[in-house]
Amino acid sequence: MTIPTDHGIHYAVEAWLKDQVSALHHIRKTLHKYPEPGWREFRTASTVAQILDECGFNLSLGQDVIEAEARMAVPENQELDLWYQRAESDNLPFLEAFKGGFTGLVGTKVFTKEGPTLALRFDLDALTLGEVVAEDQPAHMEKYKSIHEGVMHGCGHDGHASLGIMVAKLIAAIGDQFPLKGTLKLIFQPAEEGVRGAKSMVANVDDVDMLLGAHFWPVGSYSVIGGLRGLLATSKLDAQFFGTPAHAGKQPELGNNALLAAAQAMVALQGAPRHSQGVTRINVGTLQGGTDRNIIPAFAKMQLETRGSTTEAEAFIRQYAIKALEHSAAMQGCRVEIDQVGSAPSGDSSPGLAQFVETLALKEAGTQRVHGDHQAKVSEDFAYLMKAVQDRGGQASFIGLGMDSRLKLHSHDFDIPQEDFEHGCRVIAHVLVECLHLDYNTN
Amino acid sequence: MTIPTDHGIHYAVEAWLKDQVSALHHIRKTLHKYPEPGWREFRTASTVAQILDECGFNLSLGQDVIEAEARMAVPENQELDLWYQRAESDNLPFLEAFKGGFTGLVGTKVFTKEGPTLALRFDLDALTLGEVVAEDQPAHMEKYKSIHEGVMHGCGHDGHASLGIMVAKLIAAIGDQFPLKGTLKLIFQPAEEGVRGAKSMVANVDDVDMLLGAHFWPVGSYSVIGGLRGLLATSKLDAQFFGTPAHAGKQPELGNNALLAAAQAMVALQGAPRHSQGVTRINVGTLQGGTDRNIIPAFAKMQLETRGSTTEAEAFIRQYAIKALEHSAAMQGCRVEIDQVGSAPSGDSSPGLAQFVETLALKEAGTQRVHGDHQAKVSEDFAYLMKAVQDRGGQASFIGLGMDSRLKLHSHDFDIPQEDFEHGCRVIAHVLVECLHLDYNTN
Amino acid sequence: MTIPTDHGIHYAVEAWLKDQVSALHHIRKTLHKYPEPGWREFRTASTVAQILDECGFNLSLGQDVIEAEARMAVPENQELDLWYQRAESDNLPFLEAFKGGFTGLVGTKVFTKEGPTLALRFDLDALTLGEVVAEDQPAHMEKYKSIHEGVMHGCGHDGHASLGIMVAKLIAAIGDQFPLKGTLKLIFQPAEEGVRGAKSMVANVDDVDMLLGAHFWPVGSYSVIGGLRGLLATSKLDAQFFGTPAHAGKQPELGNNALLAAAQAMVALQGAPRHSQGVTRINVGTLQGGTDRNIIPAFAKMQLETRGSTTEAEAFIRQYAIKALEHSAAMQGCRVEIDQVGSAPSGDSSPGLAQFVETLALKEAGTQRVHGDHQAKVSEDFAYLMKAVQDRGGQASFIGLGMDSRLKLHSHDFDIPQEDFEHGCRVIAHVLVECLHLDYNTN
Amino acid sequence: MTIPTDHGIHYAVEAWLKDQVSALHHIRKTLHKYPEPGWREFRTASTVAQILDECGFNLSLGQDVIEAEARMAVPENQELDLWYQRAESDNLPFLEAFKGGFTGLVGTKVFTKEGPTLALRFDLDALTLGEVVAEDQPAHMEKYKSIHEGVMHGCGHDGHASLGIMVAKLIAAIGDQFPLKGTLKLIFQPAEEGVRGAKSMVANVDDVDMLLGAHFWPVGSYSVIGGLRGLLATSKLDAQFFGTPAHAGKQPELGNNALLAAAQAMVALQGAPRHSQGVTRINVGTLQGGTDRNIIPAFAKMQLETRGSTTEAEAFIRQYAIKALEHSAAMQGCRVEIDQVGSAPSGDSSPGLAQFVETLALKEAGTQRVHGDHQAKVSEDFAYLMKAVQDRGGQASFIGLGMDSRLKLHSHDFDIPQEDFEHGCRVIAHVLVECLHLDYNTN
Repeated sequence: MTIPTDHGIHYAVEAWLKDQVSALHHIRKTLHKYPEPGWREFRTASTVAQILDECGFNLSLGQDVIEAEARMAVPENQELDLWYQRAESDNLPFLEAFKGGFTGLVGTKVFTKEGPTLALRFDLDALTLGEVVAEDQPAHMEKYKSIHEGVMHGCGHDGHASLGIMVAKLIAAIGDQFPLKGTLKLIFQPAEEGVRGAKSMVANVDDVDMLLGAHFWPVGSYSVIGGLRGLLATSKLDAQFFGTPAHAGKQPELGNNALLAAAQAMVALQGAPRHSQGVTRINVGTLQGGTDRNIIPAFAKMQLETRGSTTEAEAFIRQYAIKALEHSAAMQGCRVEIDQVGSAPSGDSSPGLAQFVETLALKEAGTQRVHGDHQAKVSEDFAYLMKAVQDRGGQASFIGLGMDSRLKLHSHDFDIPQEDFEHGCRVIAHVLVECLHLDYNTN
Repeated sequence: MTIPTDHGIHYAVEAWLKDQVSALHHIRKTLHKYPEPGWREFRTASTVAQILDECGFNLSLGQDVIEAEARMAVPENQELDLWYQRAESDNLPFLEAFKGGFTGLVGTKVFTKEGPTLALRFDLDALTLGEVVAEDQPAHMEKYKSIHEGVMHGCGHDGHASLGIMVAKLIAAIGDQFPLKGTLKLIFQPAEEGVRGAKSMVANVDDVDMLLGAHFWPVGSYSVIGGLRGLLATSKLDAQFFGTPAHAGKQPELGNNALLAAAQAMVALQGAPRHSQGVTRINVGTLQGGTDRNIIPAFAKMQLETRGSTTEAEAFIRQYAIKALEHSAAMQGCRVEIDQVGSAPSGDSSPGLAQFVETLALKEAGTQRVHGDHQAKVSEDFAYLMKAVQDRGGQASFIGLGMDSRLKLHSHDFDIPQEDFEHGCRVIAHVLVECLHLDYNTN
Repeated sequence: MTIPTDHGIHYAVEAWLKDQVSALHHIRKTLHKYPEPGWREFRTASTVAQILDECGFNLSLGQDVIEAEARMAVPENQELDLWYQRAESDNLPFLEAFKGGFTGLVGTKVFTKEGPTLALRFDLDALTLGEVVAEDQPAHMEKYKSIHEGVMHGCGHDGHASLGIMVAKLIAAIGDQFPLKGTLKLIFQPAEEGVRGAKSMVANVDDVDMLLGAHFWPVGSYSVIGGLRGLLATSKLDAQFFGTPAHAGKQPELGNNALLAAAQAMVALQGAPRHSQGVTRINVGTLQGGTDRNIIPAFAKMQLETRGSTTEAEAFIRQYAIKALEHSAAMQGCRVEIDQVGSAPSGDSSPGLAQFVETLALKEAGTQRVHGDHQAKVSEDFAYLMKAVQDRGGQASFIGLGMDSRLKLHSHDFDIPQEDFEHGCRVIAHVLVECLHLDYNTN
Repeated sequence: MTIPTDHGIHYAVEAWLKDQVSALHHIRKTLHKYPEPGWREFRTASTVAQILDECGFNLSLGQDVIEAEARMAVPENQELDLWYQRAESDNLPFLEAFKGGFTGLVGTKVFTKEGPTLALRFDLDALTLGEVVAEDQPAHMEKYKSIHEGVMHGCGHDGHASLGIMVAKLIAAIGDQFPLKGTLKLIFQPAEEGVRGAKSMVANVDDVDMLLGAHFWPVGSYSVIGGLRGLLATSKLDAQFFGTPAHAGKQPELGNNALLAAAQAMVALQGAPRHSQGVTRINVGTLQGGTDRNIIPAFAKMQLETRGSTTEAEAFIRQYAIKALEHSAAMQGCRVEIDQVGSAPSGDSSPGLAQFVETLALKEAGTQRVHGDHQAKVSEDFAYLMKAVQDRGGQASFIGLGMDSRLKLHSHDFDIPQEDFEHGCRVIAHVLVECLHLDYNTN
């Protein structure tokens, strides 16, 4: 393929995409077929690594880019091994680097002209959710439905990873033909679901001046949110209560009722005070406890989450929750173990960068509508990376890529339509080259 | 075998038992190997039916002795069919009569001399509990450990059913040689665990003057409790809470939190008032609810039980519980479904009959110790039958057959030792023949 | 006094105030000395009525301006009579019109030129709070500390009422000298504390095009908030629980524990779900119950309030609260009586009018600073009147009159400093005459 | 008066009583008229002391018989002083010894013949309960209704104290005429209500071989309970919760909600586990908290009690309660102060002594019916003294003196009828002289 260099870089992007977008979507569908849950993205990460290597990116893999201790809710070794073995059958070249649940990588390319460091972050993991596909859905007709029961790409991370692959291929294809500047880092992160992964990769943005992330967002096709605002700080906690069993009829006084402790904790958690700074949320999403009707329950487990529109408000409600859990347990003579299995700070995209994305999308990427004032009201661990860059004076934005508004994230039949994937590719590609090419300054 | 009739009926019993007890214990071990949970005792009931038939008892089976609507917590058809099919492979003659979860039977024998009607009741069902057997335990060495994973005879009902079989065989063997009087009814009841079965068979004691039941009881070998007192009235309830799911971060006000309703109910249930009449108990033994950490839970299920030392006190706490469940649900805008899946009234053995058993056991059955003042503090649906007989002016007693006090009912490695089984046979056999033979009157 | 008419109306205002402000402040101090709680402002209302009459305003008093049924939390007759008798000793001319807790009035003046109707609303009531005055405080030195123990003007309504008196006197003094237009209504409202009064006077703004209210606000001297935003909708509820007493030792089952019902309700209320629309609040501020340690409590009473940043969000949490109260009571076999003793909708000042006030204050009233973006986060029943005017297409603003930021509303030693009172007079006076005089149009 | 010595001691008792009972009842009525609550029985104790002194008893007063630290719930000095001053006006000789809330005394008489030590205990305190007397009640007609508003002898301690006075006078009158043996101790105890006093006087029974107490008991006139059984162990606890106030609308996160902590504690306390040993009880009898509807409550106070049919069961539920209080407070960031303001162990009268009383009452005192199997189901701090004597091998009994069964202890119109008082005197007098006179041995 020849890129007509004299027609400008955006023209080159369009031409390349026209030629490549089917192949790119095929890559997405293949990732969709082989979904892997958090910290188990062995096949996905290896696939990405192989392509980035082919595209001439400098690779840093696994433990070189992931801080082991900062990972949250890593599964047991047995579970990790199971997925590693599944990936082994494909003979992917870089697989070993990801062993033990270090399924992230960073690809770097330094351009000849001096300039700032631009990073893009893509997430890799699938949901533990069963895929249900109707007969007229592409995933059925084109046979790319998940091969793993109970696991699926229900949040579009197959699309996000494919965007990252597109960027690598695009740079490989046209990068030499234009005078690009600075450094480009492509960050592929595991375990975004449950906000478990980003914290362990935050060191990778230490030298980053501008950071972009993106998520397909069901607000309508051909639309863009230049930078999501109002990402809620969140913590994901697991609490296990340990008590003493006793026969409920014969000697109830010998029991320490772990389920009662959990129920009292749930009631207390629900009553966490409001906060003047803004929105807070708390939810005990699941609770299981007890073994038999006639036994004082000696064990209970709950999964809960807290959220706050500021990091401080979230910290307040989380600390309240921990106190409520501990004292509810102690009141019943029980012990409680609390594990933080996910977390993210609050976050807002940098306004200037967000507006830049919107303007460019309308001008170059076929976008027909922008949502400048969209409040996310969700949590994303991209906020860790965004905050790190912003704290150091850089700019960061989390782009919403519009898709059919009838679709629902985390539903059993979620998939990314062809035209929305293509539009997403166009937005990211044009934003990318504009940032690398021109002397853009958003300040 | 020849019974030396001139030495009296108790001598005959001893001689017969000496000859037969190993074979009887073998029957118990076989029942132990093929445990079947409540309403699914297809193989067990068919086995008993076949033996009673061979022993010349008049049989009434299945729906002829069980009132369909009074059965509690009958499993789904699929589960019933599974166990029925397992039993089919044994080609047992009476199997079909028990189809659909009607796994009870009554064997009747009318003697030539006129007299009162004596009934004995035996239970048939196993526990849903995994059997764990050490290498030096008989069940391992003699290979009669449960073949069904997660199901075992952990409460000795294999022994009770075998006592019933013993009685049938004993009567067949020596009944003609002694001038027995009245009518003997052997009642084999399903689903005692969870107190689900007796209520459906209560019509079978409408003509009974004297009723006996028995349970192996770990109060020491060669000991007897002539009649257990203080059986607690009980109700077993299942409560299902139905609410409305909602995203816990985005729109918490749209949810109706079924798990919160259940937790609040559990806390309220725990606080049920004490009763001046005596002991009450309440226990929420299990609770499960919710699907995801970030979803307002739309469903929860709890299993609970209430107990009381009088039927009235139990009714008080049960009614309180129902009110607490209903209003906790309504408070959260949820709906609750409450099913009574088991129940038994309170009960005390008739003192005269209990004393008769103790006296006779000491005299004829090798019993070395009796526990005249033992308070049971457990629940047993035998109390339904006992109450029916006592209300009509008859006498009833629930006999505790002593066994090694280190054993624990409902434990994973429970089994009935050879010597305790033999002693239990002797107690029941001697009590039986004394009742049928002499002009005993306990009034 | 002569007003130099040729120097313009604002000059006339300044001149008049310079001459009168000490007398006006003396009036405020006298009101401060005779504080009267809500629906009992007999002396205060009569004083205002007398002055308005003297100033040539047309008076509508008591039941003519207050809808009896819409009043909330009116005290018992005995309490009303007590305060009425206290006021009688002063021989105030209009007193009788306010009898029975109808302590509001409206003074109207129609100017010769046609024009819109401008209304100003002032509140009259004091707090049931004991005044504590240091020796160096003016209230001590000038002997205007409250003469009624446990009652004080701790929220500055003495100042607000005095502003209304100032307006009447100012119009009487200079009104004839300038070509004023339209109609001026001065609305004096009882029982703002507890948001109990405004609802009953809402009909008085049916013909009002522009409505102003004002509150002294401790955000710094010589500052103004042109229009407070974010007034929270609120409901004030009293809940009384009625149960059955019983001896806690002898027959606990005979009791219906009203205090337990209240405690369970409080815990449930605290757990009211968050709302996606914005801020909600719930608080059980007081709870009393029970008589003796050994008696199951048969009575409990709680005072609670709900708030919401939108009227809809407040309604949601209020309805949740009512359901929680009712079902907590029913769960214990108790009855609950819930009385709404106060309420106010949410409210935001009209932005154009607010900006007009700020601009004018800076220009004419010696104001040095304005707080354009101040969120109130409190509740005020002025919102009833504001909403009524805005719903009909009019404009309304609730002005914050800056005062020393170290002062604290509702504290035991609250008082309005001389300079802040004077500045408040200037702001209101200039805004008033500008509205009546010029062809101001805020649209 | 002359006692006919030759007719036996019981005859002498009858004769003396016939002559004296009206005077004795007059003493009771006077005590009734001047009721004094616990630790404030200055007038009552002084009156008793004066009479005992006149009767020749050796007196030990105030701090000589009361251990200061073991007193529970002694009122503030101001309250003590108030009642002391009231008593001062009567110029009673021994008043000063009781100052500071040491309102107990012991009168001792040693007889010439050697013998065991017999002690009788009488309580002195009144209830804080308003007396309501109908026009046809003796207290109205004879003008001995309580002169102290809100304080009355509603539990008959005026009668008990009068029985003690009777004993002293009887011994003085007839003691010399009969050969009495051993030592007689009359123990007058303050603050029985709330079980606050006995613990501080327990040292006084260190040398006692036989101990009697008595209580008028509404089980019918002319009946006796020789020895009450089943006195419940009890603890009386006060819990004060200290939190942090905050404006409930503006900054709820700054509050530490003491009332919420108390409500959660109450709910948790209500759910204290049952105990296999027997009856337990728990009751939060009163709760007060909070100041204003819109303030997060910073203070709450509850009064509660626990009971148990064994001292161990009561200790279990008390310890559970303390844990629940502490952790409920800590959960809300509050502090809780728990004071034990009363306590008593469980207790049963010695059976032999009880039977002796019953037999003698039927024989000598005109008693027509005895209640041998009466279970008290109440708490009494006499149990401290009883336990101390029984633990040392002595015998003790708490006698129930029958009275009209329509009367209700602790009711507003309680009074002791003339005939029931007289019968009570007869029972105690005859039991007393029998114990002192004969060689009675109950073992």
